[in-house]
Amino acid sequence: MGKTIVEKIISGHVGEEVKAGDYCVVPVDMLMCHDATGPLAIKAFREFERERVWDSAKVAFVLDHATPSPNERISGLHDMLRSFAKEQGIRFFDVGEGICHQLMLEKGMVLPGDIALGTDSHTCTYGAVGAFSFGIGSTDASGVLLTGKLWLKVPQTMKIVVEKGLTRGVYPKDLMLHIIGILKSDGADYLCLEFTGSCIDDMSMGGRMTLCNMAIEAGAKGGIVPPDEKTLEWVRSRSSRFFTPKLSDADANFIDVLHIDAANLEPQVAFPHAVDNVHPVDEAIGIPVQQVFIGTCTNGRLEDLKEAESILRGRKVNDSVRLLVCPASREVMLEAAKQGIIASLVEAKATLIPPGCGPCPGTHLGVPGEGENVISTANRNFKGRMGNNKSNIYLASPATCAASAIEGRIADPRKYLD
Amino acid sequence: MGKTIVEKIISGHVGEEVKAGDYCVVPVDMLMCHDATGPLAIKAFREFERERVWDSAKVAFVLDHATPSPNERISGLHDMLRSFAKEQGIRFFDVGEGICHQLMLEKGMVLPGDIALGTDSHTCTYGAVGAFSFGIGSTDASGVLLTGKLWLKVPQTMKIVVEKGLTRGVYPKDLMLHIIGILKSDGADYLCLEFTGSCIDDMSMGGRMTLCNMAIEAGAKGGIVPPDEKTLEWVRSRSSRFFTPKLSDADANFIDVLHIDAANLEPQVAFPHAVDNVHPVDEAIGIPVQQVFIGTCTNGRLEDLKEAESILRGRKVNDSVRLLVCPASREVMLEAAKQGIIASLVEAKATLIPPGCGPCPGTHLGVPGEGENVISTANRNFKGRMGNNKSNIYLASPATCAASAIEGRIADPRKYLD
Repeated sequence: MGKTIVEKIISGHVGEEVKAGDYCVVPVDMLMCHDATGPLAIKAFREFERERVWDSAKVAFVLDHATPSPNERISGLHDMLRSFAKEQGIRFFDVGEGICHQLMLEKGMVLPGDIALGTDSHTCTYGAVGAFSFGIGSTDASGVLLTGKLWLKVPQTMKIVVEKGLTRGVYPKDLMLHIIGILKSDGADYLCLEFTGSCIDDMSMGGRMTLCNMAIEAGAKGGIVPPDEKTLEWVRSRSSRFFTPKLSDADANFIDVLHIDAANLEPQVAFPHAVDNVHPVDEAIGIPVQQVFIGTCTNGRLEDLKEAESILRGRKVNDSVRLLVCPASREVMLEAAKQGIIASLVEAKATLIPPGCGPCPGTHLGVPGEGENVISTANRNFKGRMGNNKSNIYLASPATCAASAIEGRIADPRKYLD
Repeated sequence: MGKTIVEKIISGHVGEEVKAGDYCVVPVDMLMCHDATGPLAIKAFREFERERVWDSAKVAFVLDHATPSPNERISGLHDMLRSFAKEQGIRFFDVGEGICHQLMLEKGMVLPGDIALGTDSHTCTYGAVGAFSFGIGSTDASGVLLTGKLWLKVPQTMKIVVEKGLTRGVYPKDLMLHIIGILKSDGADYLCLEFTGSCIDDMSMGGRMTLCNMAIEAGAKGGIVPPDEKTLEWVRSRSSRFFTPKLSDADANFIDVLHIDAANLEPQVAFPHAVDNVHPVDEAIGIPVQQVFIGTCTNGRLEDLKEAESILRGRKVNDSVRLLVCPASREVMLEAAKQGIIASLVEAKATLIPPGCGPCPGTHLGVPGEGENVISTANRNFKGRMGNNKSNIYLASPATCAASAIEGRIADPRKYLD
């Protein structure tokens, strides 16, 4: 019996052949902590009175959840992470560098075949480069800081085969919302989702990140895309570190296979208050929105901003709407500024907010008002997610969000595409 | 005996000849309220059970002090202003449009000869176009909303005569810090400062706004620049409303005259924790800074961003520093994006924050940490002003701030100018 990518990655790390269901202790290639969860990890680490983390070259700290700091308490937490990183020689990304997951990939810190962890549930994003990655709690992270290891159960893998191409106005975000709508929020509990098929082969690295990013929303431990030439070219341009890409064997044991015909897919919208409450855009058209948010680790990349800008260019955001746009990193912001995308978005009346998580986790920078509807490119729409449990969050692609910003109501982006 | 500009403006408004020291009730041409102080004005207005404000065309509401909203409570205040403005037909500037004072001038809402009020102490900025303007409390504003009138004592005027040109690396901000250093924080209590002389004649409209903006920091009721051809051209490009510019008579009664030789001026820095604690930059060089802020109603205009960018272009912000840049309005942001200034600043590792007051009043978006030093282009450095009473704030020009961002220590901008 062959092995899945994840079984191969873990086997390679533990030095013996393991299969789904086995428990093992794995060495970790990279640990990421951010400002919301990192402080607890440091506190727990300090309790062991160990002087140094196991390997400072394999740790990265990112300030992204509330940056620039909205209050004195959070400034103190930022200082705590900044000081610890300096003391330990840990790579540190300060205010304004961007969202942790974007940075980990953009800066080449996670490579194919790696086991990468982070104190954030969307750490599964790194599956886009063929790494096995997932979120852990702060106290688990303190254990990793001490030992460089974590215990886990090897997950079973569900294969998602997406064939044919996405049609005009339909994007990876729509595909992933559709998949979550089918699987439901617990349909992939503790599984790894392996995305394959011609649609994935043709998909940009950014699109693959969007898919893997939201694997957790179906309950999955991780999401992964088999690394191909596109992956290798992308990571080689960002890192010179040695890596060993893994692919599933043809006779690997998949717990399930889901087939999707991308050509039949329409733009999708997740309705409040669950990510799996997914409907085709037709059923959402006309719902008024007061705030539109384009950004996050799901959809804040250059291609996402371009997708939105292609719809907003030469048009204006509706007076009833506040459109917030948040590039996922300084690199994204810089490239968008150089290419004229920022000017075009501002001309359309978008408000740029600094690279980071922005209003997605409800920490600041766009907490909606009572009774307001928001349409967002984020990955979660739970009640209160954006900081107000009396608001409603709809999730969609950057294109659908841009079209909705123009109309002040949820709109089909296809009518705005040339 | 002749009259000062302010005596003439008030006389024209009340329909009889008044002079400094007289008490009178003046009709108001424009009232501005923002999100920090507007809610109280609305509450007080509501207590009178009057249905409509006196003249909705003469009122503007701006969301700028905490935008986009950092929490649910402030989202509620934003909603309150938004709803009231809609109900009353009041011109409304939502999240991301910019700082109130910048908008009032940029959108041509205050013209020469006007009496303009705002529920913000830096309303005195509008003196730059030859208006008499000053900040009032929220309950006073509710009276204006009801009646369109306010009582006041006609202020005496102090003339500030600035001759010769500012030298390379010295800017209007340095001039105004120098003036405040001479006058001290109460040296112009309830006076109007009238800025004249060849240096003012040659000064841009933006520079004049910087001067008038900080008149309050010397205790002044207002600051004013006699409107000239430059003023008229500027306001005519932004408004078609009729206005009557006023100039002081040659034999007007000035309470005092301060003469300044601009050619002798060096870059200035206000030290913690008082705006009048002003020193030449030489005495500040080398003081470490962890955060640098370029923006605000004092120095967030296009020429300020250009001034900073000319120093940062092709260089990098020091790793020990967070540089926050906040354009004063969407118009400033758009123009800066179009001219490549945004790209250049981001490339230098600046973090752009959305048009608004940003971290200046300590509401969010960059509250400093304990023990940190900040150098800022803002107008106030009182203890706790930026949200942490254990941090220290230095005030300087955008150029001095940019140079300090490069070095991680307060620096003389002149060494970076070609």
